[in-house]
Amino acid sequence: MPIVESIPNVSEGRRPDVIERFASAIRAVPGVRLLDYSSDASHNRSVFTLVGDPEAVKAATLALYEAALPEIDLRVQRGEHPRLGAVDVVPFVPIEGITMDQCVALAKQVGASIAERFDVPVYLYEDASANPARKNLEDIRRGEFEGLAEKMRSDGWIPDFGPRTPHPTAGASVVGARMPLIAYNINLNTHRLDVAKKIAAAIRQSSGGLRYVKAAGFMLEDRNIAQVSMNLTNYQKTPIFRVFEMVKREAERYGVSILESEIVGLVPSAALMSAAEFYLQIERFGPEQILENKLK
Amino acid sequence: MPIVESIPNVSEGRRPDVIERFASAIRAVPGVRLLDYSSDASHNRSVFTLVGDPEAVKAATLALYEAALPEIDLRVQRGEHPRLGAVDVVPFVPIEGITMDQCVALAKQVGASIAERFDVPVYLYEDASANPARKNLEDIRRGEFEGLAEKMRSDGWIPDFGPRTPHPTAGASVVGARMPLIAYNINLNTHRLDVAKKIAAAIRQSSGGLRYVKAAGFMLEDRNIAQVSMNLTNYQKTPIFRVFEMVKREAERYGVSILESEIVGLVPSAALMSAAEFYLQIERFGPEQILENKLK
Repeated sequence: MPIVESIPNVSEGRRPDVIERFASAIRAVPGVRLLDYSSDASHNRSVFTLVGDPEAVKAATLALYEAALPEIDLRVQRGEHPRLGAVDVVPFVPIEGITMDQCVALAKQVGASIAERFDVPVYLYEDASANPARKNLEDIRRGEFEGLAEKMRSDGWIPDFGPRTPHPTAGASVVGARMPLIAYNINLNTHRLDVAKKIAAAIRQSSGGLRYVKAAGFMLEDRNIAQVSMNLTNYQKTPIFRVFEMVKREAERYGVSILESEIVGLVPSAALMSAAEFYLQIERFGPEQILENKLK
Repeated sequence: MPIVESIPNVSEGRRPDVIERFASAIRAVPGVRLLDYSSDASHNRSVFTLVGDPEAVKAATLALYEAALPEIDLRVQRGEHPRLGAVDVVPFVPIEGITMDQCVALAKQVGASIAERFDVPVYLYEDASANPARKNLEDIRRGEFEGLAEKMRSDGWIPDFGPRTPHPTAGASVVGARMPLIAYNINLNTHRLDVAKKIAAAIRQSSGGLRYVKAAGFMLEDRNIAQVSMNLTNYQKTPIFRVFEMVKREAERYGVSILESEIVGLVPSAALMSAAEFYLQIERFGPEQILENKLK
């Protein structure tokens, strides 16, 4: 049974009873598990993490729209977090037994259903978008709900599904497919923040580094050490071991070594398996050799 | 649900219909999966690999005895492989959600039941044996079925369960608990067999090396390269990355590098995870951070 993850972001983070009803709507769908949900009152936003087979996850996403749209009116909703829609962003992430192409197909199916059932315009993003100018969430969301009507009239912003005007209270939704994110930090044996910042600049895509790396340098004040803090946005194409080795080599340039690294939150096992294969130089190895996979 | 593996070795490898009945007896037990079985006619021996929850695996083991004992008479059975019993060896291996201590307890329960139901004497071995002289399978099996009656009369060979004389046709069984084995080979960038043999001698326990490593040097004639071939008998206490690094360092002494390594057959995912943690210097990491573990 294929497993897909969805992480819908909803523009409501202040009314616990309402948020609880959204969670219940997701949980009520057979074949779906709500792994986690959290809300931020100042952002006025909640994030739900659910998994299941593609059909069930699709049904749960539509159930969330059904529950959320009557509750959220973006004409009056305010919060620190930028938003384009009542259900703002819906990414689908391949977890097990499902390809990225299949997640893209799922995103398109769900996008079409959202437009049809709720009359909400939908923009596809990340891997689900064929348009380079409409891959990046920030580009699509720029101008927010308040600027949406005007944006939708301008060149290049016809939505992928649904009406060519915003939904009056729910705006538009951004629906797509992407790889799982890995939040990965490397702590350096130094108190020099400038070293962490220089390494971050060297390895991140935006300033010429590795394609699927976002990075910044920080100080861990309580420990007086510098940290390179990263998001790895595609661990298959930019693997974690290559990032580690590149940070290590750049640090050497300043006479600095790696103290330790840490993974924040969840990581797919394949991301760590590939590191073991790399360092142990393992050849002719396949997932069917992992004992646990025999037990499924 | 805890998962234990059992790998019973039976002294029958020549009659396919009989072996098939043994397999059917295992498969008939609810909650058990027979992952694999294979027979060797010259050894006159079959090996079954089954997994399931402890109660089910216990039931399947007893069902195998029920099927095998009427079929095998060690007074006439002959084969190249040494054997003490009709059902010769029964190891229990912790796979998931079960500790080694719990596998030891299971081995003792099963051993007591074998003795009680079938009047077969049982020796505990490996982790299930508290007696250092009776941990090693080869020590227990020395003298084979033919020497068993005399051995059982000598000091130190009172069985752990059952009668103090051999079962007339089924001899005795060796039942115990051990860690999963990992068959791990490292291929060297050299055609010098002497280098592989020297490295094998340096790293294996028997000649002073790492405790849970068995190793030998071989030539891969078709590729004209030397290989260090190993069994890792406890990947938790002697982890795979430490073995790899020690082989690498010993090879450097002769100006030789590692070409590649390979895992033969199955490996528990934790054995590779620990290598990733070592090389990436990951701190503060736990199995609850592996995405797949959230899906169980």
